Amino acid sequence: MSMAGPKHTQINPATGEVIGTVEFGSGDDYERAVKAMLAAKEKWALTPAPVRGEVVRQIGQRIREKQHALGALVSAEMGKILPEGIGEVQEAVDICDFAVGLSRTLNGSVIPSERPGHFMMERWNPLQGCVGIISAFNFPCAVYFWNVALSLVCGNVNLWKPAETTSLVAIAFVKLVQDVLKESGHDPAVATLVCGHGKEIGEALIQDPRMELVSFTGSTAVGRHVNQVVAGRFGRALLELGGNNAMIIDRDADLDLAVRAALFGAVGTAGQRCTSLRRLFLHADVYEEVLGRLKQAYASVKIGDPLDSQTLCGPLHRPEGVKLFTTTVAKALEEGGKVLVGGQPWHGVEKGGMLSHGNFVQPTVVEVPATAKVLEEEAFVPVMYVVKIKDLQEGVKMNNSVRQGLSSALFTSSPTSVFEWTGPTGSDCGIVNVNIGTSGAEIGGAFGGNKETGWGRESGSDAWKQYMRRSTCTINHSKELPLAQGINFGGGNENGGEGKIMD
Amino acid sequence: MSMAGPKHTQINPATGEVIGTVEFGSGDDYERAVKAMLAAKEKWALTPAPVRGEVVRQIGQRIREKQHALGALVSAEMGKILPEGIGEVQEAVDICDFAVGLSRTLNGSVIPSERPGHFMMERWNPLQGCVGIISAFNFPCAVYFWNVALSLVCGNVNLWKPAETTSLVAIAFVKLVQDVLKESGHDPAVATLVCGHGKEIGEALIQDPRMELVSFTGSTAVGRHVNQVVAGRFGRALLELGGNNAMIIDRDADLDLAVRAALFGAVGTAGQRCTSLRRLFLHADVYEEVLGRLKQAYASVKIGDPLDSQTLCGPLHRPEGVKLFTTTVAKALEEGGKVLVGGQPWHGVEKGGMLSHGNFVQPTVVEVPATAKVLEEEAFVPVMYVVKIKDLQEGVKMNNSVRQGLSSALFTSSPTSVFEWTGPTGSDCGIVNVNIGTSGAEIGGAFGGNKETGWGRESGSDAWKQYMRRSTCTINHSKELPLAQGINFGGGNENGGEGKIMD
Amino acid sequence: MSMAGPKHTQINPATGEVIGTVEFGSGDDYERAVKAMLAAKEKWALTPAPVRGEVVRQIGQRIREKQHALGALVSAEMGKILPEGIGEVQEAVDICDFAVGLSRTLNGSVIPSERPGHFMMERWNPLQGCVGIISAFNFPCAVYFWNVALSLVCGNVNLWKPAETTSLVAIAFVKLVQDVLKESGHDPAVATLVCGHGKEIGEALIQDPRMELVSFTGSTAVGRHVNQVVAGRFGRALLELGGNNAMIIDRDADLDLAVRAALFGAVGTAGQRCTSLRRLFLHADVYEEVLGRLKQAYASVKIGDPLDSQTLCGPLHRPEGVKLFTTTVAKALEEGGKVLVGGQPWHGVEKGGMLSHGNFVQPTVVEVPATAKVLEEEAFVPVMYVVKIKDLQEGVKMNNSVRQGLSSALFTSSPTSVFEWTGPTGSDCGIVNVNIGTSGAEIGGAFGGNKETGWGRESGSDAWKQYMRRSTCTINHSKELPLAQGINFGGGNENGGEGKIMD
Amino acid sequence: MSMAGPKHTQINPATGEVIGTVEFGSGDDYERAVKAMLAAKEKWALTPAPVRGEVVRQIGQRIREKQHALGALVSAEMGKILPEGIGEVQEAVDICDFAVGLSRTLNGSVIPSERPGHFMMERWNPLQGCVGIISAFNFPCAVYFWNVALSLVCGNVNLWKPAETTSLVAIAFVKLVQDVLKESGHDPAVATLVCGHGKEIGEALIQDPRMELVSFTGSTAVGRHVNQVVAGRFGRALLELGGNNAMIIDRDADLDLAVRAALFGAVGTAGQRCTSLRRLFLHADVYEEVLGRLKQAYASVKIGDPLDSQTLCGPLHRPEGVKLFTTTVAKALEEGGKVLVGGQPWHGVEKGGMLSHGNFVQPTVVEVPATAKVLEEEAFVPVMYVVKIKDLQEGVKMNNSVRQGLSSALFTSSPTSVFEWTGPTGSDCGIVNVNIGTSGAEIGGAFGGNKETGWGRESGSDAWKQYMRRSTCTINHSKELPLAQGINFGGGNENGGEGKIMD
Repeated sequence: MSMAGPKHTQINPATGEVIGTVEFGSGDDYERAVKAMLAAKEKWALTPAPVRGEVVRQIGQRIREKQHALGALVSAEMGKILPEGIGEVQEAVDICDFAVGLSRTLNGSVIPSERPGHFMMERWNPLQGCVGIISAFNFPCAVYFWNVALSLVCGNVNLWKPAETTSLVAIAFVKLVQDVLKESGHDPAVATLVCGHGKEIGEALIQDPRMELVSFTGSTAVGRHVNQVVAGRFGRALLELGGNNAMIIDRDADLDLAVRAALFGAVGTAGQRCTSLRRLFLHADVYEEVLGRLKQAYASVKIGDPLDSQTLCGPLHRPEGVKLFTTTVAKALEEGGKVLVGGQPWHGVEKGGMLSHGNFVQPTVVEVPATAKVLEEEAFVPVMYVVKIKDLQEGVKMNNSVRQGLSSALFTSSPTSVFEWTGPTGSDCGIVNVNIGTSGAEIGGAFGGNKETGWGRESGSDAWKQYMRRSTCTINHSKELPLAQGINFGGGNENGGEGKIMD
Repeated sequence: MSMAGPKHTQINPATGEVIGTVEFGSGDDYERAVKAMLAAKEKWALTPAPVRGEVVRQIGQRIREKQHALGALVSAEMGKILPEGIGEVQEAVDICDFAVGLSRTLNGSVIPSERPGHFMMERWNPLQGCVGIISAFNFPCAVYFWNVALSLVCGNVNLWKPAETTSLVAIAFVKLVQDVLKESGHDPAVATLVCGHGKEIGEALIQDPRMELVSFTGSTAVGRHVNQVVAGRFGRALLELGGNNAMIIDRDADLDLAVRAALFGAVGTAGQRCTSLRRLFLHADVYEEVLGRLKQAYASVKIGDPLDSQTLCGPLHRPEGVKLFTTTVAKALEEGGKVLVGGQPWHGVEKGGMLSHGNFVQPTVVEVPATAKVLEEEAFVPVMYVVKIKDLQEGVKMNNSVRQGLSSALFTSSPTSVFEWTGPTGSDCGIVNVNIGTSGAEIGGAFGGNKETGWGRESGSDAWKQYMRRSTCTINHSKELPLAQGINFGGGNENGGEGKIMD
Repeated sequence: MSMAGPKHTQINPATGEVIGTVEFGSGDDYERAVKAMLAAKEKWALTPAPVRGEVVRQIGQRIREKQHALGALVSAEMGKILPEGIGEVQEAVDICDFAVGLSRTLNGSVIPSERPGHFMMERWNPLQGCVGIISAFNFPCAVYFWNVALSLVCGNVNLWKPAETTSLVAIAFVKLVQDVLKESGHDPAVATLVCGHGKEIGEALIQDPRMELVSFTGSTAVGRHVNQVVAGRFGRALLELGGNNAMIIDRDADLDLAVRAALFGAVGTAGQRCTSLRRLFLHADVYEEVLGRLKQAYASVKIGDPLDSQTLCGPLHRPEGVKLFTTTVAKALEEGGKVLVGGQPWHGVEKGGMLSHGNFVQPTVVEVPATAKVLEEEAFVPVMYVVKIKDLQEGVKMNNSVRQGLSSALFTSSPTSVFEWTGPTGSDCGIVNVNIGTSGAEIGGAFGGNKETGWGRESGSDAWKQYMRRSTCTINHSKELPLAQGINFGGGNENGGEGKIMD
Repeated sequence: MSMAGPKHTQINPATGEVIGTVEFGSGDDYERAVKAMLAAKEKWALTPAPVRGEVVRQIGQRIREKQHALGALVSAEMGKILPEGIGEVQEAVDICDFAVGLSRTLNGSVIPSERPGHFMMERWNPLQGCVGIISAFNFPCAVYFWNVALSLVCGNVNLWKPAETTSLVAIAFVKLVQDVLKESGHDPAVATLVCGHGKEIGEALIQDPRMELVSFTGSTAVGRHVNQVVAGRFGRALLELGGNNAMIIDRDADLDLAVRAALFGAVGTAGQRCTSLRRLFLHADVYEEVLGRLKQAYASVKIGDPLDSQTLCGPLHRPEGVKLFTTTVAKALEEGGKVLVGGQPWHGVEKGGMLSHGNFVQPTVVEVPATAKVLEEEAFVPVMYVVKIKDLQEGVKMNNSVRQGLSSALFTSSPTSVFEWTGPTGSDCGIVNVNIGTSGAEIGGAFGGNKETGWGRESGSDAWKQYMRRSTCTINHSKELPLAQGINFGGGNENGGEGKIMD
């Protein structure tokens, strides 16, 4: 639908060029959108889940057919390198495939009742209200699909407010989703898009009591606000906030694997993944060896145009990112840090002398003391801090010492370390890897983090339950009415002496 | 431990007599208690879950052995009738038995990984922090055990802040729990009690970042505050707040069952259960018939001493309850309501002329118009509103029209109504019953409510997951490092073309 | 591969015409096939399940693209009407879609260990041996895909021995499956076909110790042999044998629904579904009414060419079917039965005087006494027996009185009947329907029957477990070795006093 | 009840003394017993599962109270050492505790239906027939309780036929079970005992079509017969047959743990556990070291009176065991074996010169070539074969090379080995341990073995499903009747185009 809010100019972060203009939504547009969603709600909720799953299957198939073009659009607007752009589109396809299976396994339970002639079950129903999805720039389409693919098979109507700076990607994908909805006889309002400013559309959404579930991906600062607003109105928040992800390389690690994982974790997507590696804890015995290999590996990373097939590190998404990079490195130095690799913005001089107009920086490694405050903050730039540890216990303690709790990785060849790291006294993160890096969770598991990362879980396992409401149902099909705790009340009959009934 | 806060006088609500004095905790006491818990934490978390389950089994057995005395104490301090007091203790026993089985079935998942040589699992670990339990006066021991029995087998250390006015019950039960802990070689701080004022101890608890999970049972007003405070610090809240529970009696209902269920639902525990019946929706065709039967049934309810075996309706727990009763009835009358039964405080004159000093009121039925505002508020007194409806659809709409969402019941003999009522367009409550009243959930199902009831789930099903933290673990046991989305990064090998890996 | 066994001529059952000639496999062919499967086994088993799932997704997509042509082939060779032929192909597509989701949810469990420093899990692995699938003529492709789609994602290599008379269908589908396997770089032997005679190839397969799982769909008589042979060598049998399915129409049923369900159940696929309706139990109060409506409904059924869009009842698959029909009706008459509808072979005279050369019979309804022996046998022809019952209890007893236990249906409008019929004293069948007929199970549930139907379960729920082997794993990652039951043996340390360890 | 069969004399295997005489059942007794069970069946099946669970809780509590006396009886009649006797009784207690939790979690599933207005569920009901339990002498009470505790909460009536030679134990335990049943108002026939000969009572039981489930623990030879007989009548068999359990000690193993585990595995219960260690595969690099330690460990094992607290190795249960021991050792020698430890019957001369009259033998270690045929057979005596292997792969191959598949253990310190051993190409046994021995499974996991061990699973995980029948239920609560595959049949309405409905 046509929108009445301000026009917004979309920029290619690698070149600074304008690549499009988008109509943002006004408050009235938002209201109109929600009304259309509510009008579509009941029919969609009553559509059988496997039929909803078939719609999602077709959405996935449609995306698959245009994967390359969509991937290039992601690269152009977000700035990630093309293989990552295409890879992100693949994630959208995959979660659709996953949701198809889910549409037949949104299972409740039949639970044995303690009362004769009673049938007890737990049944999962669509939410009463709407689902609002606020996504971040770094995964301009995948985050949306992680949410909407599940939410659609769960029977909900969904409103998407994408990051301002990736609105073109949002428009392209929603167009395709709505096409499938329409072609299969469903109301396109089931998947509604309103582009706009966070302060306006985003705020309206989180305040809106009709938005029963708010799925928010973004910074911890904004996420805290979302969490409190939604808590105040007894809505439900699904949060994917800041990570501050660490990798421990223990003395018994396979260093070859470890170094490659560290490089990819820290440099991939120019350090702008929520699971990007930010803190590297190296056992003293392998400290020098790993640093040597890392320097060598970093030296091979080509910075530049994300559409160039040789490039491994594209631009930061926004110009502010470069500023953040500079202050981050400066803070680290103030605290006694020492730059081992990189440390500067990048203007293209390295490769052929051409000055870049994009938001480029050098992938950077900074050695810092274990007490440095910079270790406590997530900065969405390709800066990795390195700290020496004396043993695994110290590494685990460091890993757990921050307020964020998204992803963590240990490189080791000891089964004891594997099971302790993943157990009660191990990593306190939502993602606890061994011998792979901090990125790269699979859709079959629940994705998300603890503590200030917000406790949300998306994708696999039972993450779908967050998109549904649970009904605990007891059905008396007898002619008796056993009362709780065997009480004889008003002449009625009694419970059979069990009394295991709660209030 | 001895406490340094104010002394608090415990009152018998049926007689107004003092039955004991309790040392409340000071801020220092709270701090000391938490430190002791933290000191006990790791050992308990590393104790195997089935061994923790054995401790809980013994706790249950210990309670079972003293059930009658403990039940009488509940009656004396809270004011519920003795069978309900004993019944509540039975709930504590039952949830312990349930938790024993749970201690061997806190299962995670082994999930097929898409990468060769990778092992993926979801593992459930104890919380990193502590669990704080704030309970309400109406179930002075059961609410604690619903929480602590599960939380103990989950491996957590727990702090209980009971309602001020039921501190004696709390002391008696915690003594017993700690005895078992000590006898089996565990630190009693695993189950710590600090009695005290909500404004002081309760507030300290919800603000405390060490309290990772706060389980709060109480009013929506206080619960909203708890929810926001905990959200602001990214803790986790498990809320069991106000219900405003409704029953629909459809034209095809078994009226005999329905009337008895309504009576028990509205009058049991003097209307002070979270699942007490407050709103009764009667199909026009059975309206008069049901009202007639209800009046008759209410007439047989004996008010009085909760320890008297003839009594069905004891006192309200606090003198303020009587005031609330009076204003509630008055508001209903202002809105066009008509008292059908009761409507007055009760001074014992009815039965033998003895003037009661307790907080007694008459169980009351008020006919109100469907638009009355009183229907939207929960008042913790034995007042039931009756509204005439023209069909089931109207009844469901009325049921769902309030901000609370705990319990609901439909009386019907139609399978279509059964499945629609429990389905997508049916009741939006957490508890959705058919042909039984709003009270009486079993421990096998998840207990709790939606919307302003707070979305918490306790007891059965997967409620235990709220007391644990989930670790999604991927373990690479190969010599390869497949990267996300099949990217070749820094010379490493590639993922096998699947690329179904998320960030 | 080219086969060295006898040539087999495929016949169109509607015309008696030859539609193809097939090379059957010899004993040597079988041996060669199994060796190829074993050679392919390890690589396939080590291919990650989600990657196997992607192969199955492509298989489903490939079938979808050729659905109409494949459906016509099913109709031509099996004889079912075209919509049923296309519908059967759709089943193949659907189970592939389902298996894709399953490939990420073949979950094992992480189970809390009672021993400190121990990790316990249940892990599901592919079978050690091969899977043999023997399918029946009535679902010449769907049965195969119900098995192979699941078995493929489970990581097994599979040998298919189809019914002799539907070999062309088998060849067409396996060609397509193997194409996808090859194109995606997998060994086509993973899905191997050997057409041939049951006595030879079938017998070799069930005797073969390398066939760890034998999935057999067919008659109870042959199934008993299969079961015993496989039991004797400690293989595993998944059996889908004879049904003898009943429908009860109670006095409170919706007769309109019930009659239509009975008609479809008894006449659909000319009575050759395993879930076809064979026994109809009518409450005395509705007996005459239902019979009247049934006669009317049967009168509208057009018999004839299955490719003709007007036809509802095609030919029987084999000429022997006509003989079976005749003797079945005769037996019923001997036992006091009375033909209400049909009762004769059909030679096309009814419609236009053209004499048919196909295996046609009239859809038939026979009223029999409750004691008739014919009620105990399944005959794979469109004959439905009708028996009058005095109440639901008698109907349930009749339903359960036969040795088969596949499908059953009750028509009622009473919740009590719904829950009793599906509960401990209700139907003893694997499929227990209410207000739908005996056919039409969905893939999300487990499909299969009890007693002489063979206890097998295919398709949804946890049916996949039959295609895998379960490993219960305990991993000690501590430095201690607690022994079972706390025994101190040979100077070792002791278990911590729990002793809850089995032998 | 009094029995009319032959009298049977019970012998103490440590002394040869008669310790009691038991009335065995006749065929008439058996028939009378089954009739009583059938009469008790429906009431028990309709007793709510949690109420049945409460009965089982009391059974466990009753056993707990008499644990020592019962353990001594087990020792006296079976011959295992007292700590093992008491430990076995503990297993009975533990499985009862486990079953209590299970009684509230025998959960079915609510599954999303693809048809509007349809409700689909999987519900678990008690078996239609009875459960027969045939147990072996080596665990005279635990095997019974693993079965009956679960079967009781599942709602079945159960007949126990214990080993002839452990009838006293059976009588003592059933007395206690029946006491609890009677005291709680249930029919004691729910847990019926008929002692007797396998050829008579056992054979009657397995042939009896009323015995829907036969749980048999014993030898593979007899188990094969049971399996075929039950398969022939389409009953269900739960088999726990011979193990031939192996341990691999890899070069990177913790040898201290490994040697202790091997000793306990091979000598515990005088080699008469189903999980006893029989085959030890030693990596060449540690071969000599392990053998040296083993000899030392064996030297410390005291043989003698099982009630003597110093004894680690009691008598064999039957005199035939001594003969089996002798021939087993002889066979090993014939095949090139070399006795490293023991090898002789034991007459008490070692310790004090007193000649024993019990069935004693020396715990024995025999080094054999990898090709020895004795490696393929299970002999229920304390003989362990040792074979040298060159690497883990060879060890796994040896482990999997036998026809039995119960338990297996690997000692290693490599995570790669841990996950490969438990994965697709690892051990093919039901129990796959790491760094613990072959014995000592916990009740939380499913216990049982593959291949000729019979595929049965008892105790934890979803083993309970074997004691129930699954009902896949679809309930149409709409006014429409969508047909399978979207077919328009006899004028009815159509399915909504999905057609994902199976036959």
